[in-house]
Amino acid sequence: MAHIELGNDLPGIRGLLAYRPETAGPLMGLAEVLLRGDSSLSRGERELIAAYVSSGNDCEYCAASHGASAAALLPGGAGQVEQTLAGAACDAPVSAKVRALLEIAGQVRVDGRLVSDEAVAAARAEGATDREIHDTVLIAAAFCMFNRYVDGLATPVPDDPAQHAMSAAHLIEHGYQIPR
Amino acid sequence: MAHIELGNDLPGIRGLLAYRPETAGPLMGLAEVLLRGDSSLSRGERELIAAYVSSGNDCEYCAASHGASAAALLPGGAGQVEQTLAGAACDAPVSAKVRALLEIAGQVRVDGRLVSDEAVAAARAEGATDREIHDTVLIAAAFCMFNRYVDGLATPVPDDPAQHAMSAAHLIEHGYQIPR
Repeated sequence: MAHIELGNDLPGIRGLLAYRPETAGPLMGLAEVLLRGDSSLSRGERELIAAYVSSGNDCEYCAASHGASAAALLPGGAGQVEQTLAGAACDAPVSAKVRALLEIAGQVRVDGRLVSDEAVAAARAEGATDREIHDTVLIAAAFCMFNRYVDGLATPVPDDPAQHAMSAAHLIEHGYQIPR
Repeated sequence: MAHIELGNDLPGIRGLLAYRPETAGPLMGLAEVLLRGDSSLSRGERELIAAYVSSGNDCEYCAASHGASAAALLPGGAGQVEQTLAGAACDAPVSAKVRALLEIAGQVRVDGRLVSDEAVAAARAEGATDREIHDTVLIAAAFCMFNRYVDGLATPVPDDPAQHAMSAAHLIEHGYQIPR
C-alpha cells in the first residue's frame, strides 16, 4: 500500500501523476522530450538507458515498464533488454556508442561527480555528440528522480508482467501523458 | 570546465538550461510548482528541503544556491540554514513537522525504498498532510536529479558566494525561468 492516500489504484508513477496533476505536467513533459522528442538516439536506445538506470536503482516498476518499452522498440526485443540489464555496460548487446553512454549513465546513477573525463572521451571516440552526452546524463539523472518518487511513496507494482507490455504499447502510440 | 561545449559561461544549471531549452522548460516548470507553487509548506521550508538534499549529495552549486534562497526566505536567515545543513534532520532548528519531513527527504536521497512507515507516521503525528509528504518526497527526488545533472556535466560553480545571494534575490522576485 502506498504511504499516502492517492484516491486511485493506478500502479507505479501513474497513481502519483493522477494524484498531483500540477507536478505531473512538467514530469511528463520532461519524459516526452527526453525519451520521445527529436534526437539522434533512437527511442529504443533512450528507453534502454532509462531501464538500465532504473534496474541499477532496483526500482522494479520503472525497470519493468521502461524495459517493456525498450523491448518493443529495439530490434533485439526482450532478449536484448534482459542481457543489457543483467550485465555491465561494457558487455551490453548494443552499439559501441550506446555502450559508452550506458557507462556514463551508470556513473550518473551513483553520483554525478563520478562522471569521468575518460568516460566522456570514450563516448566521443565512438561518435557520441555533445547533445547525446547531455541527454544521456539528464535521462540518467531524471530516472534517479522517477525511481525515488515511485519507491519513496511505496506505490504498488502490477502483479502481471503482461500489464507492462500493454502499457508500453499504449505509451509508444500515445506518448507520456497524465493518466485520466 | 564542463564536459560538453555549452556555448555560454553561465554557472551551474543555468548553463545547461540555456544550452537545451526543450528540457529546460519542464525542468523549470517542475521547480516552480514544487518550490514556489501553492503549498501549506512555506517557500523557505521548501528551499531548505532542496538545500538539505543537495548538501547531502555534496552538490556545491545546488546547496549554495538553494541555501541562499532559504536564507533569504526563512526568519532565522543564513544561521538557520547553516545549522540545518550541518547536522542531522532531528536537530534542525525548524518546526517538529519540518524536522520530520527533512528525515523523509534524507531517506529519499539515499534510496526511495528506505522511506519507512515509521518516518511517515512520525511526520503525520507532527501534523504533516499527505500532500506535504508527497511534495517532500518529490522535492527530494527532484534534487537527486538536479544535483546529478549539474555535477554529471561538471558545470562551473561561481567563485564568489555573493553571486548566490544575488541570484536568490532575483529568483525570489521572478521565479524559476530559463536564463536568457
